[in-house]
Amino acid sequence: MGKGGTMEENMAAWLVGINTLKIQPFKLPDLGPHDVRIRMKAVGICGSDVHYLKAMRCADFIVKEPMVIGHECAGIIEEVGAEVKHLAPGDRVALEPGISCWRCESCKEGRYNLCPDMKFFATPPVHGSLANQVVHPADLCFKLPENVSLEEGAMCEPLSVGVHACRRANVGPETNVLVMGAGPIGLVTLLAARAFGAPRIVIVDVDDHRLSVAKTLGADEIVKVSTNIQDVAEEVVQIGKAMGAGVDVTFDCVGFDKTMSTGLRATRPGGKVCLVGMGHDAMTLPLTSASAREVDVIGIFRYKNTWPLCLEFLRSGKIDVKPLITHRFGFSQKEVEDAFATSARGGNAIKVMFNL
Amino acid sequence: MGKGGTMEENMAAWLVGINTLKIQPFKLPDLGPHDVRIRMKAVGICGSDVHYLKAMRCADFIVKEPMVIGHECAGIIEEVGAEVKHLAPGDRVALEPGISCWRCESCKEGRYNLCPDMKFFATPPVHGSLANQVVHPADLCFKLPENVSLEEGAMCEPLSVGVHACRRANVGPETNVLVMGAGPIGLVTLLAARAFGAPRIVIVDVDDHRLSVAKTLGADEIVKVSTNIQDVAEEVVQIGKAMGAGVDVTFDCVGFDKTMSTGLRATRPGGKVCLVGMGHDAMTLPLTSASAREVDVIGIFRYKNTWPLCLEFLRSGKIDVKPLITHRFGFSQKEVEDAFATSARGGNAIKVMFNL
Amino acid sequence: MGKGGTMEENMAAWLVGINTLKIQPFKLPDLGPHDVRIRMKAVGICGSDVHYLKAMRCADFIVKEPMVIGHECAGIIEEVGAEVKHLAPGDRVALEPGISCWRCESCKEGRYNLCPDMKFFATPPVHGSLANQVVHPADLCFKLPENVSLEEGAMCEPLSVGVHACRRANVGPETNVLVMGAGPIGLVTLLAARAFGAPRIVIVDVDDHRLSVAKTLGADEIVKVSTNIQDVAEEVVQIGKAMGAGVDVTFDCVGFDKTMSTGLRATRPGGKVCLVGMGHDAMTLPLTSASAREVDVIGIFRYKNTWPLCLEFLRSGKIDVKPLITHRFGFSQKEVEDAFATSARGGNAIKVMFNL
Amino acid sequence: MGKGGTMEENMAAWLVGINTLKIQPFKLPDLGPHDVRIRMKAVGICGSDVHYLKAMRCADFIVKEPMVIGHECAGIIEEVGAEVKHLAPGDRVALEPGISCWRCESCKEGRYNLCPDMKFFATPPVHGSLANQVVHPADLCFKLPENVSLEEGAMCEPLSVGVHACRRANVGPETNVLVMGAGPIGLVTLLAARAFGAPRIVIVDVDDHRLSVAKTLGADEIVKVSTNIQDVAEEVVQIGKAMGAGVDVTFDCVGFDKTMSTGLRATRPGGKVCLVGMGHDAMTLPLTSASAREVDVIGIFRYKNTWPLCLEFLRSGKIDVKPLITHRFGFSQKEVEDAFATSARGGNAIKVMFNL
Repeated sequence: MGKGGTMEENMAAWLVGINTLKIQPFKLPDLGPHDVRIRMKAVGICGSDVHYLKAMRCADFIVKEPMVIGHECAGIIEEVGAEVKHLAPGDRVALEPGISCWRCESCKEGRYNLCPDMKFFATPPVHGSLANQVVHPADLCFKLPENVSLEEGAMCEPLSVGVHACRRANVGPETNVLVMGAGPIGLVTLLAARAFGAPRIVIVDVDDHRLSVAKTLGADEIVKVSTNIQDVAEEVVQIGKAMGAGVDVTFDCVGFDKTMSTGLRATRPGGKVCLVGMGHDAMTLPLTSASAREVDVIGIFRYKNTWPLCLEFLRSGKIDVKPLITHRFGFSQKEVEDAFATSARGGNAIKVMFNL
Repeated sequence: MGKGGTMEENMAAWLVGINTLKIQPFKLPDLGPHDVRIRMKAVGICGSDVHYLKAMRCADFIVKEPMVIGHECAGIIEEVGAEVKHLAPGDRVALEPGISCWRCESCKEGRYNLCPDMKFFATPPVHGSLANQVVHPADLCFKLPENVSLEEGAMCEPLSVGVHACRRANVGPETNVLVMGAGPIGLVTLLAARAFGAPRIVIVDVDDHRLSVAKTLGADEIVKVSTNIQDVAEEVVQIGKAMGAGVDVTFDCVGFDKTMSTGLRATRPGGKVCLVGMGHDAMTLPLTSASAREVDVIGIFRYKNTWPLCLEFLRSGKIDVKPLITHRFGFSQKEVEDAFATSARGGNAIKVMFNL
Repeated sequence: MGKGGTMEENMAAWLVGINTLKIQPFKLPDLGPHDVRIRMKAVGICGSDVHYLKAMRCADFIVKEPMVIGHECAGIIEEVGAEVKHLAPGDRVALEPGISCWRCESCKEGRYNLCPDMKFFATPPVHGSLANQVVHPADLCFKLPENVSLEEGAMCEPLSVGVHACRRANVGPETNVLVMGAGPIGLVTLLAARAFGAPRIVIVDVDDHRLSVAKTLGADEIVKVSTNIQDVAEEVVQIGKAMGAGVDVTFDCVGFDKTMSTGLRATRPGGKVCLVGMGHDAMTLPLTSASAREVDVIGIFRYKNTWPLCLEFLRSGKIDVKPLITHRFGFSQKEVEDAFATSARGGNAIKVMFNL
Repeated sequence: MGKGGTMEENMAAWLVGINTLKIQPFKLPDLGPHDVRIRMKAVGICGSDVHYLKAMRCADFIVKEPMVIGHECAGIIEEVGAEVKHLAPGDRVALEPGISCWRCESCKEGRYNLCPDMKFFATPPVHGSLANQVVHPADLCFKLPENVSLEEGAMCEPLSVGVHACRRANVGPETNVLVMGAGPIGLVTLLAARAFGAPRIVIVDVDDHRLSVAKTLGADEIVKVSTNIQDVAEEVVQIGKAMGAGVDVTFDCVGFDKTMSTGLRATRPGGKVCLVGMGHDAMTLPLTSASAREVDVIGIFRYKNTWPLCLEFLRSGKIDVKPLITHRFGFSQKEVEDAFATSARGGNAIKVMFNL
């Protein structure tokens, strides 16, 4: 297996029980002809990682066996399979975390993110990437432009959510955008919408600090709202004033009754509301009146074919993700625990990043 | 004004108060250069007409002044304006009821059904078409093919709802369709989906008679359901079995929590649920899990550019609307009252038609 | 390898030189976990097969080593790989002939027909399927409905060209279609356009017999034309009369200066001309005036995701391909030679089919 | 008629014969309820204006009666019709020059630029706008943002050609763009493609000065080419190197055999070539091989719904058209003659502008 590939030295962060992560040895699979072996250098913590840690589950996925955590990542190629042509040892790459089957209808039609047999980093029972090394298909490893750092490479994963949402909602230079929620997903959606050319973006949150970060990152206007559903009508008026024009697309990056109701009402006839956040499962909504204005509700699941565009946005400077990285940790037992605690605590933390 | 255009003889059915229709004289406006004057021959009763009669309102539209009712109609040209080239007296035509402004963004972008200044038959304060004669823009009057009757012409209006829904949901020969509700709108949507090439259509209702009509009209399978929201999970299984494949598009032609919840759950990842019915305003729905499978919710408002296609479907026999016309009435005070009572009663009545 | 898989008994038709086909043993590759082994039962002859036979090349593809010919085929599963779930020995299947890489951009975006690493039956250096048995990926083998024969299954391949063309040109129930050329490709395009709902189809050819076949297969009107480019203007008038409406989409299934010029002129502003035939390489065309009416020219390469739809069209009877099969041959040295001679001669032959 | 509307003082530049323009009185039509009267302040000269001047015709349009010339314009509102709500005297506006019928199929489907009854400034027999005052529909007059000058407002017309081309070719942040030709239309297309987010733009011309202007305006790379059709293959290689990636969309802003052949060959499989320039009518092209790579050819006719987006691009600074205005003239007989001579001469002139 060559340098670095031995079981002794390859360690990973295993989720072994509720609130329990252990750094333990992680045996790498064999390197297939189309695979590469990557030394991980940057891994970010996602909200779903925190969910798994707290509950051993996320949505319908349940962790039944110990599982390596982590899926937002970038590293350096150590070894390439026999058939790999476009990568070589030493290349810095960002990793797309999901391996789809390419045999089902969804895959063949170009919607591989909907593949029912997707194998996705740290979605049980598939191991994740918070490890010294991983083996991954070469076509899911994207070479970083010279001026893009490994940490920025790891940020392609959360950014991809915003990019996929903007693509599905068809955001462009004529699309006035409303973003509900200024958390990490709201912020990457804001950045993506700007990069897709949205001329005017208003962002809404309940928290002053988050709103001020959003303003710094390029929101044209911010609107502070309450958590009280009674305030929807009034807040829709406020949002309209802040936009100074019709809202073409709303991204609900929260997913509560109130945020979605606000989005449905605030969006112009013929516009779209894209549900990105997954706050509540059942929602009570004024859907009929929105539908009768041909406001469509667009769903989102992960992303597809987003890495090349994310890297181009980072290369060209159309998007700067560095301000989102608020905390950094090393890869020791203690630091892994501290990092997850920091991420779970929220507060001023946006993205917590490991440097391995 | 010539034959027939005098105020004395032009009578119309006026909505003058709750549950009160009166046949009274109706003065025609002047004939503009691009207008035609039509002698009405067939006018159908729509659910919205019944709403107005019962409550003097429908959705946000309120009848404040006496208003001529009716908007599903066909007739014979009596006189054409100076600039009208494509129509002549004696031509049999179906009428598209809405006159849009052609100056707003929606009109210019080809979504004229969303025009905020739309003047639509029998949507207050605009008069409708249950009258001996009306004046209407020539470009909204569509010549009937020889083998299409005036009654069938009047049916273009409800059929247009199904056609517009199928277009927005992009129904074609690869689209397995689920229709929730076998009322008039469910039935025209079924007919339209078949004409757009849907290979397999399952229709769902609570009523045996409606389901048997749907079967006669071409549904591949029917599923009888309850009104109990607890039964959704089980009914989704039944629907899946009846379809024998994934549901690509669901048309909810009812618009209740239960029908919409069923649609959201029954539709395959990447599919669409199109909300056509307007039963409940606020809805409680499992929207998040549907969105996380990229099931989009598509809204509908009336229709646009549907008359030529409806007439082609009727001409070619791809759609036969005649079985939908279950009751016929003449245009006297008593018959108007009886006709509306029949339509309001429901039961076996699908479409109630006036022959003037 | 079990029954039937030995090299001794697996014979194939090898293209070994210009005009020289030899039935010789053909060693099957190993059966991978996602592969199936199929006993071939029906194989059709395509124009490209004839090209290879006559010239050892077709377009830019050159036959440098002896190659098994044939790619329009259906057969019966003999053995399935370890991971194959949806097929079993005894299943009758139609085969999609191209294996794409699923690692390139085109594959990932759902346009796998444009994959630069496509391995396609009988496109050198890849062997074809005119053999007793072949090994093929299971996801490219589509189970035949009970009422669809193996010969009809083999016809999915040419039919796929018409289906892909109709999809790219967005043919539906509002699309008046003009087909240039009533050869095999023109006829499958006619059948596909009808199945996609085209209300009116006019077909054009220089040959009376072909036109009469097209009429039998469902063309609404036929127009006989000359080979003289001077006649374009007059023939465009004739086509317009035959259509009795604007031409929304033209399929040029010939690909000569004259056919393409006719298509460009005959198509209404905002319509499309889809170039399916590959007659001439360089063309002299009135492209500027067509472009200035926003007539787009749509290109076609093979097909993608067409087998399920073709089989549905055959199952439902929306398309009947049986009349296209004009000649049948067995799988002996002499019959293979006769079959190719029949196909090359043209005349009344539309599709020549082997029954193995 | 009030201040300024009298026949005595309203002068216009009339095209009265080949190479003959005369400033003569121009009687304004009556102001309709939805019209406005505008005092012209900036009018640009378009290539088509020069064509009309030199030949009394352009494409199929022939000047049979004296006609006021000019259609790229902006001015200040003097009077508004009774129904006009969104404009008032004193407002600075840019004018969209074409009045479509809103009764035909094209208009109703949102492709009003294809309206067969379009009345367009300075397209015979409709008068143009190089006049002290004109009357125009209010919905075709777009208020200038404060930071956009009247001259920039007039530039919305040529810029609209580039914007419409980018929309039809679906240019966005993932579209590598090749522009053939660095004349006025090539340059506005370059500016529009950049504003739509094209990450990389290569522009090609035969002239060093034009190329250097294109570089200044934001082209990533320039490629100097010959007029010799034999050089296509080699130049395609050069273009590929300059792009350093596949060409997704080519805009041919010249319209010669050579430019279009280069575009067809240089564009990646699945890409698009958009024909904007109208150099030659008949073209000899390698269309078949391009179509067999699913390279589509997209046509363009003028534009639709472009003014609001152009003004937003100018307001936000995403596009700066000021460098394109190379020459300015007043509105006297002599200056009009000099201005047209300057525009016809070409050389360093890009846009010649009248300040009235």
